[in-house]
Amino acid sequence: MRKRKVAILGATGTVGQRFIGLLAGHPWFEISALTTSDSKAGKRYGDVTPWHWAGEMPAAVADMTLEATTADLDAEVCFSALPSEAAERWEAELAKTGHHVFSNVKTHRMDDDVPLLIAEVNPNHMHALDVQRRKRGWSGSIVTNGNCSAIGFALAAAPLQKSFGIERAVVTTMQAISGAGYPGVASLDALDNVVPFISEEEEKMESESKKFLGRWDGKRFVDAEFSFSAHCNRVSVRDGHTETVSLTLRGSPSPEAVKNAMREFRGRPQELRLPTAPERPIHVREDRDRPQPVLDRDTERGMAAVVGRVREDPAMGIKYVVLTHNTIRGAAGASVLNAELLAAEGCLGS
Amino acid sequence: MRKRKVAILGATGTVGQRFIGLLAGHPWFEISALTTSDSKAGKRYGDVTPWHWAGEMPAAVADMTLEATTADLDAEVCFSALPSEAAERWEAELAKTGHHVFSNVKTHRMDDDVPLLIAEVNPNHMHALDVQRRKRGWSGSIVTNGNCSAIGFALAAAPLQKSFGIERAVVTTMQAISGAGYPGVASLDALDNVVPFISEEEEKMESESKKFLGRWDGKRFVDAEFSFSAHCNRVSVRDGHTETVSLTLRGSPSPEAVKNAMREFRGRPQELRLPTAPERPIHVREDRDRPQPVLDRDTERGMAAVVGRVREDPAMGIKYVVLTHNTIRGAAGASVLNAELLAAEGCLGS
Amino acid sequence: MRKRKVAILGATGTVGQRFIGLLAGHPWFEISALTTSDSKAGKRYGDVTPWHWAGEMPAAVADMTLEATTADLDAEVCFSALPSEAAERWEAELAKTGHHVFSNVKTHRMDDDVPLLIAEVNPNHMHALDVQRRKRGWSGSIVTNGNCSAIGFALAAAPLQKSFGIERAVVTTMQAISGAGYPGVASLDALDNVVPFISEEEEKMESESKKFLGRWDGKRFVDAEFSFSAHCNRVSVRDGHTETVSLTLRGSPSPEAVKNAMREFRGRPQELRLPTAPERPIHVREDRDRPQPVLDRDTERGMAAVVGRVREDPAMGIKYVVLTHNTIRGAAGASVLNAELLAAEGCLGS
Amino acid sequence: MRKRKVAILGATGTVGQRFIGLLAGHPWFEISALTTSDSKAGKRYGDVTPWHWAGEMPAAVADMTLEATTADLDAEVCFSALPSEAAERWEAELAKTGHHVFSNVKTHRMDDDVPLLIAEVNPNHMHALDVQRRKRGWSGSIVTNGNCSAIGFALAAAPLQKSFGIERAVVTTMQAISGAGYPGVASLDALDNVVPFISEEEEKMESESKKFLGRWDGKRFVDAEFSFSAHCNRVSVRDGHTETVSLTLRGSPSPEAVKNAMREFRGRPQELRLPTAPERPIHVREDRDRPQPVLDRDTERGMAAVVGRVREDPAMGIKYVVLTHNTIRGAAGASVLNAELLAAEGCLGS
Repeated sequence: MRKRKVAILGATGTVGQRFIGLLAGHPWFEISALTTSDSKAGKRYGDVTPWHWAGEMPAAVADMTLEATTADLDAEVCFSALPSEAAERWEAELAKTGHHVFSNVKTHRMDDDVPLLIAEVNPNHMHALDVQRRKRGWSGSIVTNGNCSAIGFALAAAPLQKSFGIERAVVTTMQAISGAGYPGVASLDALDNVVPFISEEEEKMESESKKFLGRWDGKRFVDAEFSFSAHCNRVSVRDGHTETVSLTLRGSPSPEAVKNAMREFRGRPQELRLPTAPERPIHVREDRDRPQPVLDRDTERGMAAVVGRVREDPAMGIKYVVLTHNTIRGAAGASVLNAELLAAEGCLGS
Repeated sequence: MRKRKVAILGATGTVGQRFIGLLAGHPWFEISALTTSDSKAGKRYGDVTPWHWAGEMPAAVADMTLEATTADLDAEVCFSALPSEAAERWEAELAKTGHHVFSNVKTHRMDDDVPLLIAEVNPNHMHALDVQRRKRGWSGSIVTNGNCSAIGFALAAAPLQKSFGIERAVVTTMQAISGAGYPGVASLDALDNVVPFISEEEEKMESESKKFLGRWDGKRFVDAEFSFSAHCNRVSVRDGHTETVSLTLRGSPSPEAVKNAMREFRGRPQELRLPTAPERPIHVREDRDRPQPVLDRDTERGMAAVVGRVREDPAMGIKYVVLTHNTIRGAAGASVLNAELLAAEGCLGS
Repeated sequence: MRKRKVAILGATGTVGQRFIGLLAGHPWFEISALTTSDSKAGKRYGDVTPWHWAGEMPAAVADMTLEATTADLDAEVCFSALPSEAAERWEAELAKTGHHVFSNVKTHRMDDDVPLLIAEVNPNHMHALDVQRRKRGWSGSIVTNGNCSAIGFALAAAPLQKSFGIERAVVTTMQAISGAGYPGVASLDALDNVVPFISEEEEKMESESKKFLGRWDGKRFVDAEFSFSAHCNRVSVRDGHTETVSLTLRGSPSPEAVKNAMREFRGRPQELRLPTAPERPIHVREDRDRPQPVLDRDTERGMAAVVGRVREDPAMGIKYVVLTHNTIRGAAGASVLNAELLAAEGCLGS
Repeated sequence: MRKRKVAILGATGTVGQRFIGLLAGHPWFEISALTTSDSKAGKRYGDVTPWHWAGEMPAAVADMTLEATTADLDAEVCFSALPSEAAERWEAELAKTGHHVFSNVKTHRMDDDVPLLIAEVNPNHMHALDVQRRKRGWSGSIVTNGNCSAIGFALAAAPLQKSFGIERAVVTTMQAISGAGYPGVASLDALDNVVPFISEEEEKMESESKKFLGRWDGKRFVDAEFSFSAHCNRVSVRDGHTETVSLTLRGSPSPEAVKNAMREFRGRPQELRLPTAPERPIHVREDRDRPQPVLDRDTERGMAAVVGRVREDPAMGIKYVVLTHNTIRGAAGASVLNAELLAAEGCLGS
């Protein structure tokens, strides 16, 4: 695979920093531009960015100069961690001028010609790009990532939808503070506390999960048909969203059947051996008290969903717990994997 | 009401200490004995008890001498915070010798002649004591408290069971570390983490909730008939269990109807104006991000359930969040209120 | 004492909210105005203020209408929790128009005619007000509170300065997140972390401590002469600043002598039995592992310093740990006590 | 270097687990035995050990069978993470039977013929082994690690002692919960709290620091002569001890001179390029708010001390903050490095 130049839009925030960490030394992508929507343009990245992750900022990146986001960025691929308003303005503009934009915000997620993609779950949604380009007259494209909690749910539920069919889902999330960016959640709200509300999160989970698990019929997206209820909570955890999931599945499969479906699940990223793909997208544990954020969030470099406690649910049928690393599998890592998938499938041009 | 002597069994632990806090200056009860099941007997309470709550240990209590638990304690009422084994041995023994035992452990909760009581929810279960005394030949009695999470769920759900009828419930708890006593949860398990498992907790919630919301038919307890699923989690919160609740109710009442039922709910403790009774057992909030443990757990001195976010549930019908103070409303405070109820109703002898 | 009307400047922030909590039901002061420096003026306090403390916002206050800060506030006394810029603009303006301003920001703390006051420590600094009014032509006045960490240090050290004399002090603070207001410290900086830096805090501690422990010679403030070094850290605690203190005292007193000096310490607030005064300004504990924020910060409603582990210091002479509630004793409570002192001493007019 | 068989004594605890993580794939050492002092002997390691660190337990180790600690272990080198009593019994016994024991407990640290070793700081203390073997008639040996806080202090202070000479030190620690092992610190003591006391910690820091920074004169250890005062605190951090250090140094060097001495510091491990040696034992940062545990504890795989905020101290001369990873640099990693040093220097036999 030839190397492609990539830009990181909104490079100074927490997700932007995750992109930098994941793309350092990437075999297919090379960071050529870092953008920022504010007064930091023109400054050295290392001078104006408080690094939020363990380990040093990669030295080569520290020395790069931040640019304002513009339509003529020198990059084929743009990983966007822009805030909503800037995303609204720039993502379409960049796609129009030939860039392949992988977005992490909600702006275009539910558009009827924009793939909302999890590389293992609904890879054929990428074919919507033909419609997108034709209809919008773009030489580039926009592919979106889902909300971090929706990705966690949908990745673990995908083999169940495929093998059995989901009829009803009730999900409670316990979400990490990093999901809100930096400064994000005030420590007075986090310490010794649970906040049982995250703005728009339940709505996103409900709508995006149905798009992820639905299909592209050649002309349009057809949502999966199941009823879905989410309770979203913020807890005092740095990274890793934990979700308790109760499902009614067609045919009432046993816990063993559910675990087998999850364990055997592989997708295109595994077939294509994409650089960022986990070997197994879903790890199913048998320990009685796992997954736990502090122990399991880094499984397969944060790219695998970790499932535990699969058991019968007296009210719904099946229940389990799923954990995903929200800023890797639920954000930057998912975008990079989507870009790898499209590159490998020839959807980013030759 | 004449003053009754009360003993606290297992007085040095966290729940024992809550009893001491709640009974200091109580108008009807006077602490006459503090027991301990271990090598601390004979020692001054203040010398061997590391106090775990804010505020000083009451001076009069600090000067009392700890006793071993025995059958001839000088007390009419015994509040038991004994560990399971000691409870198994002593609670029945004390009831036999004429003591009225209010227990906080699971030993006798599901016995078919032992009331599992929430004073506002199922006060008439106290009539099972007639059967209990007759059958067991006791002059005293045992009344039990439920598990802290079950109490929280059942207290808020009681008016819904009464007004509409519960068909199905899916509940996820986010439970405070104080629920595990001291030393209890290791800090390495609590910090930056969620533990999605608490031993036997889900089973207790499921069975006890049905007993709470069921009825005493004069001869036996008849469980409420609904399907119930609990996901129990430990989070990094000192006090206050938060629960997300999804319910299917008969007749599909609106959120407004549900809130009204909760708001108007009053029980015998409110009618009798018992000393420890909250004015309103359930506080319903309209803020979009409440209840929160750090802000709401002390509502009505920790004796009220605080409910928020009552709304439609796309999969089940109705959903909401409920918070209760686990060591007060969910343990010591509930026991004291039960004892007050029985005293006021003449069930503790004249 | 006749009731005085008081205004709270910057009433919506965390310290503003503490003022409201402390002044609810105050025997001498009555809240007549709540100001806000921003777009919230004209709105109902309860509608626009997210309440950060346990317990409900007092209902009477919730119904008050926020005003912009102006020079003609209808109040004799102004408790200022304004941010720095607004304080710079309004505190002097209000003093000029006859208001007695009790400030919590650093703007005027080190002015040579403005008392930096701890009611128990340096009450006679209030006489600087004569110079202040004469020199500035004000009918009102400004009295300042110190920085929260400086108050904690100086309150506990005052009897040692008086009884022995301090030669050298090395202090390390472990400060609560509430000290930074709301939203204040980002949870990503607080969780599983210590931040060994708080902007300007060490400088404030060093200069203010010497003013507190110095004297007013009738014309000017004379700083205490000792060398002082502070290390200021932010830790994951909601309320309560813990400080480790190593001191060289004149005459090398024993730990017992130091404890006695602290225990016997009383000030004017205790003599005058001011409403907000703690009975004992310093509580000295003998337990080997106290004071602890979660157990001790509310001692005497948060108005007492709690000292523990007084022992010999091999390098300096004496060492101990002191804890104070930073938003009560270190901010709002200290201001209210200062106002009570000046009212009782006749310095606020008749 | 030929491969040596190594045993891990007390392999199931938190430090034992760190040894396993550090020795997986080690070029010179090969785990041949895992011991346990309790009823777990005979069981599969993976079956009875709750793994406390992120990442999976190494598979090869999971399959090993735990043994009771005995004197005839099949290993040349023993890394001991035994609890005190077991250490007292077995460490000397194993040294007698020819094992080279690297101990992490205090039992033998202050013995006058046992090296208390930091590989970079006092490597020539290893010559005490000649005396030790001769005097005790051992074919093996015991080398000890210091207390985790003492190691952090001494490692950063070593170049200052060497370049200038320390006259007086005042140190406050903010120590991570992992330092107390598992279950260790109760979460009720850790959450929203600081505990200003750790049993025996201050005494250990004071005595061990002087031995580390002292010398071996060929016959005996001669302590460094400076006065030392430690305040030890437990804070809500998983890993990484932060220490604020105030020093009086001979000749009053400037902050720049102090930083240079630290930056240029290299020891035998760096000269010998030992496998576990950090490239630079001390990293000096210029950022105003570093080091921070969550960002800096993993510097050089947890083997480097990270120093920040080197500045003048008005009371003592120089002050700074130092952070070390307590279970790696302060425990298991330090032991492994000591063993590598002795192997490379020919002190473990050929």
